[in-house]
Amino acid sequence: MDLSAEFKRWKAQCLSKADLSRKGSVDEDVLEIVQLLNGQEQFFTTSSCAGRIILLDRSVNGSEVQKQNCCWLLVTHKACVKDDVIVALQKAKGDAILKFEPLVLHVQCRQLQDAQILHSVAIDSGFRNSGITVGKRGKTMLAVRSTHGLEVPLSHQGKLMVTEEYINFLLKIANQKMEENKKRIERFYHCLQHALEKETVSTTSQPKEKVNTSYIRKKKRNPGKARGKRVNEEHDKELENNDHDDPGISDTIFPEDY
Amino acid sequence: MDLSAEFKRWKAQCLSKADLSRKGSVDEDVLEIVQLLNGQEQFFTTSSCAGRIILLDRSVNGSEVQKQNCCWLLVTHKACVKDDVIVALQKAKGDAILKFEPLVLHVQCRQLQDAQILHSVAIDSGFRNSGITVGKRGKTMLAVRSTHGLEVPLSHQGKLMVTEEYINFLLKIANQKMEENKKRIERFYHCLQHALEKETVSTTSQPKEKVNTSYIRKKKRNPGKARGKRVNEEHDKELENNDHDDPGISDTIFPEDY
Repeated sequence: MDLSAEFKRWKAQCLSKADLSRKGSVDEDVLEIVQLLNGQEQFFTTSSCAGRIILLDRSVNGSEVQKQNCCWLLVTHKACVKDDVIVALQKAKGDAILKFEPLVLHVQCRQLQDAQILHSVAIDSGFRNSGITVGKRGKTMLAVRSTHGLEVPLSHQGKLMVTEEYINFLLKIANQKMEENKKRIERFYHCLQHALEKETVSTTSQPKEKVNTSYIRKKKRNPGKARGKRVNEEHDKELENNDHDDPGISDTIFPEDY
Repeated sequence: MDLSAEFKRWKAQCLSKADLSRKGSVDEDVLEIVQLLNGQEQFFTTSSCAGRIILLDRSVNGSEVQKQNCCWLLVTHKACVKDDVIVALQKAKGDAILKFEPLVLHVQCRQLQDAQILHSVAIDSGFRNSGITVGKRGKTMLAVRSTHGLEVPLSHQGKLMVTEEYINFLLKIANQKMEENKKRIERFYHCLQHALEKETVSTTSQPKEKVNTSYIRKKKRNPGKARGKRVNEEHDKELENNDHDDPGISDTIFPEDY
């Protein structure tokens, strides 16, 4: 079976299956994107989480970081208030950790070119840790990921290590990140719509070898993609709108249009 | 010029340039990997950071999350002690944040197949947020990234929000993560050596179309890659060695060997 037929078969199989997450449904904030992608013949989503604030309780067995048991004290996809965290923390017996996790979305793509377009949309929307995976038999997947997290240890062996005032302060930051994440999700949706429209225009009105022109033009217009931009974006994330150099990364200048 | 010749030209140009990071040299812990990769004709590294603990001071102008100025109070690639952080925190005027950032490595690859092999090495070594980027003109890059971070707000508008005891507790965790990161870097180096040796054997002793067999065999032996493994690895990271389901991710089962 050729890869395109195999992709179709897999998409049908995947979308007809029950949602196996405990929640059993797609998060509201990412539903529009999931529906838009699954409505295109070249994509289907295989997992998604719109973003969440979670409180974990880890019990460390021995000294090995890997040998940890972990249970969930609280999970929310909405803004979180101090009292909910305080109540949940009372159940902590090990090391409780508060995390904000931004959108994660896995999209299987028919071919590499489709993944490239979607990758570009993700990066332009602020999901700068996104990346493509190509399996040994050609399965092409885009993982949409952000740099935009938070991971804060709160208690040690059941003992709270911070004040309620700090938890309040922390939740303001976590909720702010949740809001920013939502904005990026909206940006992603609109960029995706735009890219898909351009793609349709290109494939219907232009000769085959020019299919990608609109995508290239779009990239050229992006002011952030100027010649000489450095590649090491992850560690530059703190330096946006800032003149400081990054003291920690060994790097080289890289022209964008290579 | 064909892509392979262009790759050679670029590699030569890139490696002859001065290191433009403020530090001006490759971090010691990642030097072996950088040298091993740059010694292969199919790879060259464009940026690297072995991993670090940093203390940032953000001054928020207005309400916009994006409109932030940010300065570095402390950067270290080694284990960090409380007193260094306490001293550095005295200079904080805005919102100080302590972060642990694991290895980040960008490697340009001659072709997609080379990136796939390196990606597999990265994933198998624990760098599960790694991903491939393919530029519009075929530039193929692997970003090696980990899920293994820490991001903790410590002060607000110059006022310390946590105790010294908490900072001590936090640094133990950060230093532990630094150690675990080093182990993963070592694992990456050995996996890479192994993959390159297998690759050499394959390309010299087998017909062209079987070049990747060793890579496939290696993957099949990996016990973590069993049939039916879920794709949403990022958000599963807390659930290693744990029977809990992830309550937040909408997903589907995905056979590994598709």
